[in-house]
Amino acid sequence: MSEREAKGELKAKARGRAVGRPSRNDGAGAGPDLRDGILDHAELVFAEAGFAGANLREIAARAGVNQGLIRYYFGSKADLFDECFRRRGGVLAGHRHVNLDRLLEMSDAPSVEDIVYAYLKPQWDMKYSSPNGAAFVAMQARLHAEPEEHALRLRREVYDASVKRYIATLALVLPQIPKDIISVRMAFLVGAYLFMLNDLGRIGDLTEGHLTSFGKDEMLDQLVRFLSAGLRAPL
Amino acid sequence: MSEREAKGELKAKARGRAVGRPSRNDGAGAGPDLRDGILDHAELVFAEAGFAGANLREIAARAGVNQGLIRYYFGSKADLFDECFRRRGGVLAGHRHVNLDRLLEMSDAPSVEDIVYAYLKPQWDMKYSSPNGAAFVAMQARLHAEPEEHALRLRREVYDASVKRYIATLALVLPQIPKDIISVRMAFLVGAYLFMLNDLGRIGDLTEGHLTSFGKDEMLDQLVRFLSAGLRAPL
Repeated sequence: MSEREAKGELKAKARGRAVGRPSRNDGAGAGPDLRDGILDHAELVFAEAGFAGANLREIAARAGVNQGLIRYYFGSKADLFDECFRRRGGVLAGHRHVNLDRLLEMSDAPSVEDIVYAYLKPQWDMKYSSPNGAAFVAMQARLHAEPEEHALRLRREVYDASVKRYIATLALVLPQIPKDIISVRMAFLVGAYLFMLNDLGRIGDLTEGHLTSFGKDEMLDQLVRFLSAGLRAPL
Repeated sequence: MSEREAKGELKAKARGRAVGRPSRNDGAGAGPDLRDGILDHAELVFAEAGFAGANLREIAARAGVNQGLIRYYFGSKADLFDECFRRRGGVLAGHRHVNLDRLLEMSDAPSVEDIVYAYLKPQWDMKYSSPNGAAFVAMQARLHAEPEEHALRLRREVYDASVKRYIATLALVLPQIPKDIISVRMAFLVGAYLFMLNDLGRIGDLTEGHLTSFGKDEMLDQLVRFLSAGLRAPL
């Protein structure tokens, strides 16, 4: 990138939007959406190859830009990963807050099932919304396989506030269960559904192919029942 | 490797054991245990870097052998991964069978809690038995992030028989729940505990550091209660 080009882009950044560059491929992602286009391609590559297996060269080639531009916008591969995670993770956390708001507006003491459903539904919807939504869910389910310090920091930043509100609400409607136990059970819940969202093949195996009789809504319903019973388990 | 060396090794292989080679480093893993030594090092690298991130060069360097020898014994990186998985996964599946045998000897209708405990305990013990046991558990928890066809084939081969025996036993003691639903719930169970075994950091976050008050046995106990309640959930 020449100094002049770099300066032009800095100015564009200062105006709060990214500037386009002619795309090397078919022009997809060029223009003011270039930044989002790069994130879309990065998300697909991270979902397929994981953090360690992904490389900027491939992301650049797929997005039709050069690696220097990606570095200029986002920094290192780790920074790009974080940005992908924050973009869609923020949407998810936001939907969870809004769902809980609605639930608490309707009742001071919603059922455990309603609380679990409000928590799970946004990620469920994201998985089935688009190939990129599904890629983010896969990226997310792989996150615990990434270096722990990095993964924990990101999850804390993006999810802690909303998860803790759910834990507090569950503690309110399950006064007989100590809050620490509810927190541990909430972690079991997160594990079960993240794994599940990426593990439909294995469920197919274990049901010996009968999974086809379960639609995605019924599967969510099954998961809500299972996890609600677990949250309510006697001490 | 000279033709003569290769022939000698083939003969040793035919006798059912691997032959040693002088080690390049400190001699660790040389001798008849060389094959197991290579698998131990491979396990650690696969656990740290995942399948995509691992490379034979690093495994060879850590094991103090050359890459050619690894290829000779095991074949490709995928073959080496499979061999690591089969070695310890076979032990795990065996322990699960034996635990279920014992349970069914004592009673025709064991409790759901006892069945879940019999299933979870071997992997729990493996995680805390040694750094390599822990590495295998991490490798296993990452498996669903590996290319799906490969992961499913391996899990089928190593685990299907034992998991299906557990599903059949659960179906026996929970006659009110259709077997397909039990199978789906069993998949939820696998997800929750695999994730959990690798996700203690996140549990620490969600309990705001109170995790320290939970020993590993209490954590297993909590998981058994949670999952048993889930398996028993009304339809």
